[in-house]
Order: sequence, then structure tokens, then C-alpha cells
Amino acid sequence: MRIEEALDRKTEFFLRPRYAETDQMGVVYYANYLVWFECARTEWLRDVGMTYAGMEAQGVFLPARRSEITYHASALYDREIVVEATVRALTPVRVEFVYRVVDRAENKLLAEGVTVHAFTDADGKLTRRGFEALGIEK
Amino acid sequence: MRIEEALDRKTEFFLRPRYAETDQMGVVYYANYLVWFECARTEWLRDVGMTYAGMEAQGVFLPARRSEITYHASALYDREIVVEATVRALTPVRVEFVYRVVDRAENKLLAEGVTVHAFTDADGKLTRRGFEALGIEK
Amino acid sequence: MRIEEALDRKTEFFLRPRYAETDQMGVVYYANYLVWFECARTEWLRDVGMTYAGMEAQGVFLPARRSEITYHASALYDREIVVEATVRALTPVRVEFVYRVVDRAENKLLAEGVTVHAFTDADGKLTRRGFEALGIEK
Amino acid sequence: MRIEEALDRKTEFFLRPRYAETDQMGVVYYANYLVWFECARTEWLRDVGMTYAGMEAQGVFLPARRSEITYHASALYDREIVVEATVRALTPVRVEFVYRVVDRAENKLLAEGVTVHAFTDADGKLTRRGFEALGIEK
Repeated sequence: MRIEEALDRKTEFFLRPRYAETDQMGVVYYANYLVWFECARTEWLRDVGMTYAGMEAQGVFLPARRSEITYHASALYDREIVVEATVRALTPVRVEFVYRVVDRAENKLLAEGVTVHAFTDADGKLTRRGFEALGIEK
Repeated sequence: MRIEEALDRKTEFFLRPRYAETDQMGVVYYANYLVWFECARTEWLRDVGMTYAGMEAQGVFLPARRSEITYHASALYDREIVVEATVRALTPVRVEFVYRVVDRAENKLLAEGVTVHAFTDADGKLTRRGFEALGIEK
Repeated sequence: MRIEEALDRKTEFFLRPRYAETDQMGVVYYANYLVWFECARTEWLRDVGMTYAGMEAQGVFLPARRSEITYHASALYDREIVVEATVRALTPVRVEFVYRVVDRAENKLLAEGVTVHAFTDADGKLTRRGFEALGIEK
Repeated sequence: MRIEEALDRKTEFFLRPRYAETDQMGVVYYANYLVWFECARTEWLRDVGMTYAGMEAQGVFLPARRSEITYHASALYDREIVVEATVRALTPVRVEFVYRVVDRAENKLLAEGVTVHAFTDADGKLTRRGFEALGIEK
């Protein structure tokens, strides 16, 4: 895949919040959005033809260096959610994902976020194998 | 408590990462730092003489509006960690916490973060009862 | 729905284990099976025409009184899983679910479990409204 | 340590339920007791002079084969809890832990549980190195 194509791709991940993900405020606990971002990221990789499991099997990992979430409204138990993931920056050593969390029935934006990841080897050392790991043609 | 005193206060929360908190990369999963921030925030409130449970009993809640984490190094299973929490901004409607996550044995900074919270009522509507809820004298 | 029909119903819930659900042993952490059981239970309720969210809105809750899991083999990150849920006992005050967790590609049984729940009101007191809450005709 | 001594040992693990651990029923979510059992088990190992991290470094693991929980009453956010762990059976290939979860202020039993673990190597194959891993003299 060419890099422009990867940067154009928007992946949608559908889920229903689990009871486990709610807290006693009656809404989804604020850390769980990072878990959903991970699910959407995994699907983005599958969409571009790779799997994160496959990348790890090749010795390439994607630890987070940075995360940001802006919470607009609460996600509720069992209501259909879509998490949209796109890539806003991609280099041989680094990838930055952007996410939107939307309540499907109301088409309402619940949260937005960013995660920044380094490409590393199994020991956590930076590697320049990012494009190769994602099958990106330079 | 006077507001200057609240802003000066640094609370330390000690923990050992749980096995449940690790992932197959062999380190603490990136979302769990937000859980630890919550623990440190709870202790900060106790330090200034309130409890979050008590605030909720009075009908005042602190939902997150924003979170940010910068990951410097991995936290490891069962190694002693301290999470330091301070407040960098406090108004009747809003409070901003800053956190540092440190490996105690190596005195090594693992992560830093920020969470921004609104004071709301049980229905999620903004309330100006923040100072009252925290026992802050104007 | 007649009670025989409810007892005959087998619901399948499909999922891929999340990275968040793995631990440093490289497999799904042992507590997460209870979360998956909850997901399958929620789908079973939807299958019989109710939703757990709807039951709670009517003031009927299903807290767990007992859980059991037998772990046969490890669930792995991102591999397709099906969780099958059936009801093995149902009375106006109590419902018992049985679960099987299966790796789909290998058709391999990974775990089995049971959860026992009481029908209660919002204060946790037993209620005999179980059949009504599930729309079961006596 | 002699095996009788290990079987006599009762370890107490103290905690306050985290907001993250509650659900919208306003109590601790039912899967989190297995996480607390893990914490208490880790402390039991430390009490007998080992650490689970150290065991893993030696290539000995303790995957769960079975878990059981009986829920008597709900654990609540931020209230002091003690989880007591004892070992009820110990062989070179297997260890069985028993747990009690108690609200400290009310001295009230909230839950009881059992977990059964095999001693395995890193590949999940049974090993007879259990006594050695725990420093038990035969």
C-alpha cells in the first residue's frame, strides 16, 4: 500500500459498552476509551492488510508514547458505539492515530482522542522498520 | 482550607502493578495509568480533608473532560510505584490535576499526565459548588 | 416466551480478545472470562426479547451470587472466540447461566463456566419479579 | 520453609476499591474479585519468601485451572477491604488458594473464593518444580 492510501483510510470499529466498563456514575469509566482506541487501531491495521499479532510475530511492537482524550459526553451501557480511527502521521519510526467515538443512534460525538506510538523491537528499542511492518511502499 | 494551601499540596499514592494490569508486551497496559491517576486523585481529596465518596453523597461529581498521558518508560509488574498528584488549577466549576508516575527503586520517571474535571451534579450538569465540595475558603 | 423456550435457547457471542485483556503470560488474564460471560448473558437477554438495560430501567437487577470457571486452554490476543450462553435454571427469584468459550478457528474448548444471579430491586433486595422481567409466561 | 508452615500461613492484603472497579449498580463489578485474589496470592508468595516475579524469572508460572467465587454482599467504592489468602492444598504440580473478602469497618464477609493453579513452564507445560519454586522443603 502507498502511504497516501494508508493516510486516507478511515476504519470503523463497532461495539456496545460492557457492564464491566461502566462505573458508579452510571457511564463508561474514562480509561476505557483508551481500550476502545486500541480495538479501532487493531482494525485499522487489519484494514491495511496487516495484523498487530503478525507484526509482533515479526518482532515489531507499537508501544504508546502519548495519549490524549477529550470527553464531550458520556458513553452509556449497551448503546451502539462506533469508534473511527485514522492515521494523521506516519514515519518509519512513529505513527499517530486520531479517533472519534460516536453514539450511533443519536450520531453524537462522545469523545475524541490521539495516540502516538513508536515502532520498537521486542526490547523496546526504536526500530526504523515501521513502513516494512505495515507493508507501506515508499 | 485556603486555595493556596490546596494548590501547594502534593499527594503520593503507592502501589505495585497488578498482574491484571500487564499485557503481553510484558509491561503495564497504557490505559491503566488513568486508573492510577484516579487513585492518586482520591488520595489528594482525602489529604485536603474530603473524600470523593463524600462529595458524591452531597451530589457533587467530578467527571473527566480531558486526559493526557506522556509515556517515558514502562511500568513493570509488582515493582513499587509512586504516583504523585498535584492540582494546577482550581475554580468553582473546574479542577485540573497533574500526575507523575515514578519507579521507586530506580527513582525513574515512567509517565506524566494531566486530567481536567468539571464539578457537576448527579445529572452531569455543571455546578459552581466546587469550592464548597472541597471545603475551600475563598 | 414460555419457560421451556427460554431454557432451550443457546446464544452465541463473538469477540476477539483485546490487547488490554492479555497479561504478561501472553494470554488472556483469567478474570476477563467473567466479563465475556457478562457480554454473552446480555446477548441471551436480547435474544429472548429483553435487554438488561431495559430490566434495570424497570427496577430489576441481576447481581451475581456465585461464579465458577474451569480453564482448559489459553485464549489468545485477536483470535476469534465464541462464547455460548444457555440458562440451566430459572425461577422467579434466580437464574443460572452456563457458558462455553471456544476458539473458532480450531473449534477448541478454552473454558467453561457458570454464573448464578438473583433478581433484586435497586436496593439489592430479592424480588420475585424474575419471570415478569424476562417476559416469561408461566 | 516446611510444607506445614506454608499451609498454616494466612496472608492479609488491604485495599480500597477503585472507582474503576465499580459498575453502574454502584458496587464493585463481579470480575474484580479475581483481580483482588491475584493481589492476595502475590502477597502470600512474598510472605513465604518468594515473589511471583522471581518465579517467572526462573521459568515457573502459575496459570489458573479453576476459579470459584461466592458473593455474599457488595463491596463499595473506597471502603477498606481485607482479602485473606491461605493455601488449602499444595503438591509439586498444583496449588489451591482459598480467599475471604471482608469489609474492615463492619467486619462483614463480602465474598469467598477458591483458585486452583498448575505449576507450568513458560510454554504452559506442567512442571513438577512447584516445591522448588516456592522454596518448600519436603
